[in-house]
Amino acid sequence: MAAKDPLVITGKDEMRKWSRQMRSQGKTIGLVPTMGYLHQGHLSLIQQAHKHCHLIVVSIYVNPGQFSPSEDLSTYPSDFHGDMLKLKSVPGGVDVVFCPKNLYDYSNGSDEKQKNENLGGGGVVSCVEEKGNGHETWVRVERLEKGLCGKSRPVFFRGVATIVTKLFHIVEPDVAVFGKKDYQQWRIIQRMVRDLDFAIEIVGSEIMRDGDGLALSSRNVHLSAEEREKALSISRSLLKAKSAAKDGQVKCRELKDSAILTITQAGGRIDYAEIVDQESLEAVEEISSPVVFCVAAWFGKVRLIDNMEINI
Amino acid sequence: MAAKDPLVITGKDEMRKWSRQMRSQGKTIGLVPTMGYLHQGHLSLIQQAHKHCHLIVVSIYVNPGQFSPSEDLSTYPSDFHGDMLKLKSVPGGVDVVFCPKNLYDYSNGSDEKQKNENLGGGGVVSCVEEKGNGHETWVRVERLEKGLCGKSRPVFFRGVATIVTKLFHIVEPDVAVFGKKDYQQWRIIQRMVRDLDFAIEIVGSEIMRDGDGLALSSRNVHLSAEEREKALSISRSLLKAKSAAKDGQVKCRELKDSAILTITQAGGRIDYAEIVDQESLEAVEEISSPVVFCVAAWFGKVRLIDNMEINI
Repeated sequence: MAAKDPLVITGKDEMRKWSRQMRSQGKTIGLVPTMGYLHQGHLSLIQQAHKHCHLIVVSIYVNPGQFSPSEDLSTYPSDFHGDMLKLKSVPGGVDVVFCPKNLYDYSNGSDEKQKNENLGGGGVVSCVEEKGNGHETWVRVERLEKGLCGKSRPVFFRGVATIVTKLFHIVEPDVAVFGKKDYQQWRIIQRMVRDLDFAIEIVGSEIMRDGDGLALSSRNVHLSAEEREKALSISRSLLKAKSAAKDGQVKCRELKDSAILTITQAGGRIDYAEIVDQESLEAVEEISSPVVFCVAAWFGKVRLIDNMEINI
Repeated sequence: MAAKDPLVITGKDEMRKWSRQMRSQGKTIGLVPTMGYLHQGHLSLIQQAHKHCHLIVVSIYVNPGQFSPSEDLSTYPSDFHGDMLKLKSVPGGVDVVFCPKNLYDYSNGSDEKQKNENLGGGGVVSCVEEKGNGHETWVRVERLEKGLCGKSRPVFFRGVATIVTKLFHIVEPDVAVFGKKDYQQWRIIQRMVRDLDFAIEIVGSEIMRDGDGLALSSRNVHLSAEEREKALSISRSLLKAKSAAKDGQVKCRELKDSAILTITQAGGRIDYAEIVDQESLEAVEEISSPVVFCVAAWFGKVRLIDNMEINI
C-alpha cells in the first residue's frame, strides 16, 4: 500500500470529532499510543494495528503523569520531524498523528471560572498539592501495579493507566496496540479495560530486537557503544534461561541467579529479575505454567527493561 | 407526552449496542444512574434529562463497590416492580431501564482461561485480596474524595467513581444527571469527567423535598414516624443558617454550632456539619464566595445527608 501523509491533530475536540466522523462512515479505528522518538518497534505496532482496523491513529505524547520528579522526563528524547518521516514511510501508512500539547491543562474548557482559577501552565497536580483546580483523578490497577517496575517507580503505572484512559476517551478507538516489551504495562491496560468495561480490544505486539538481540527502546539512544555492548547481557541471559527451562530447569531461583550473575558480571546494575505468571504477574518458584521472565537493569545512567515469555 | 413502556436491558453488550444504534440515528442519550427504590427525586432527574437529550436510560444497580463491609448493602431497599410502575408514568417516559445483575462479574468474557479462574460469583475484589482474577481497577478523585462523607466512608467515592465510569463505558451517554442531594458525589463526578476527558456533560439537579422539608432519599423508608419528625431538624437548621448568612452572619463557626445544636437537641447524632467551597469542597471560615452547607447525621440506625447552597 502506498505511504500517505498523516493528518496532524493537536486538539482534543478535533481528534474526537475526526474519530466520530470516521466511525459514522463505518470505519474502525486503531490507536497506537507512543511517547515519540519512534523506532522499528513502534512501526511494528502500527503494522499490527493495520491487521485489526481500517484507520490508524498514532499518539505522540510524553506523559508527565508517569514520571516521578527524580526521573528522566526532561531528558526523554524527542524528534518530531524524524517521527513524521518514519510515519510517512510505514507500510499501510498512518491516518492521524495526535500530538496534544498538554493533556492536563483544562484551561480551555468552556467554564470561565475554571479557566481563571486554573493553575498556570496546567501542571499535573496530585492529592498532595494544596491548592487549585489541577488534575486529581487517577486510575489505579491496584494489584498489578505493585510489583516489577511498580516497586521502583511508584507513580508510573498510575500515570500510564490514567493517560491511556484519557487517550481512549479522546480518540475513541476500537482497538489499541501495546508492545509486550512493556509487559506489565500491557497486562495492566488489559485488566483496566476489562474492569472498567471499555469497549476496546487490546492487542499485545511482540518485542522487536536489533540484530544483536537488544530490545528496541527509545532510551537506547542514551547508551554509549560500550554500555550497549554490555547491555546485550540482558537478552542473552533471558535466552539462556528460556533454553535451560526447555531443557528441564524449572527452578526459578537458579534461573534468576544465573541471569543476575551474567548481567552483573557484564557491568549492569539489577533493578529486578523476576519470573512471574503471565497474567497475575505474581512470582512463581517453579515453572509449571506460562511465565514471563522480566528484567530491569541499569547500564550507566540508562535503565533498560526486557522480558521473555517461557511457555513449557 | 404520553408515558411509554421502557425497554428492560440486563446485558452490557446489549446496552451498548442499543446506544450505538440510537446514536447512529442521530439521537442523543441521557443517563440517570440510580440504585433503585425510586422516589420523586429520581423522577425529577429524569425530567431534567429530558431537557438535554432525545432518549433516556435509567440504570438501576445497587453497587457493592461503594459499600464497606460494615455498611447497609444487605438492607438497602429495593422494589423493582414499583420502580417500573413509576418509570412508566414519569412525564416524557423512559426509553431503557438498564438493570445489570453484577457489573463486577467478568466470567462471561471470551477468555476461557479467565472464565475458569474467576472467583465464584464474581465478587468485588480489591488489592487486599490475595488471589484471583477479581476486579482491581479503581478510579480515585484524590482530593475531593477525602472530606465530608469520605471521612466516615473511606471506600465510598472510590466505588462511586468506578461504577459511574463503568456505566459511562457501557451506556455511552451524551449527558448524565446527578442529584445535588449527593453534593460531593456530583462534584466528584464532574471533576472525574474533566480529568479523564469523558465526552459527557454532567448536569446537577436540585434537591427534592417532601412538603415538611425532608430531603427525599431511599433510606427515609427506614425512619420511624418519630425519627422522621426529628430528622426535620436537618433541613430546618440548614434553612436557618442560609437565612442568617443572608442577614450578615458570615462566620461559619457560629452557623455550624447553631445547626449542630439544633440537630443534636432533636436527637440526631452528627457525622459532620461543614460549610465548604462549592467547587473545591474545602472548608471556609467566613462566607465570602459561593459555599454549600453539608450535613450528615444519624437518626436511629439511619444516616441521612442534606445540604444547602448559600450564594451571597
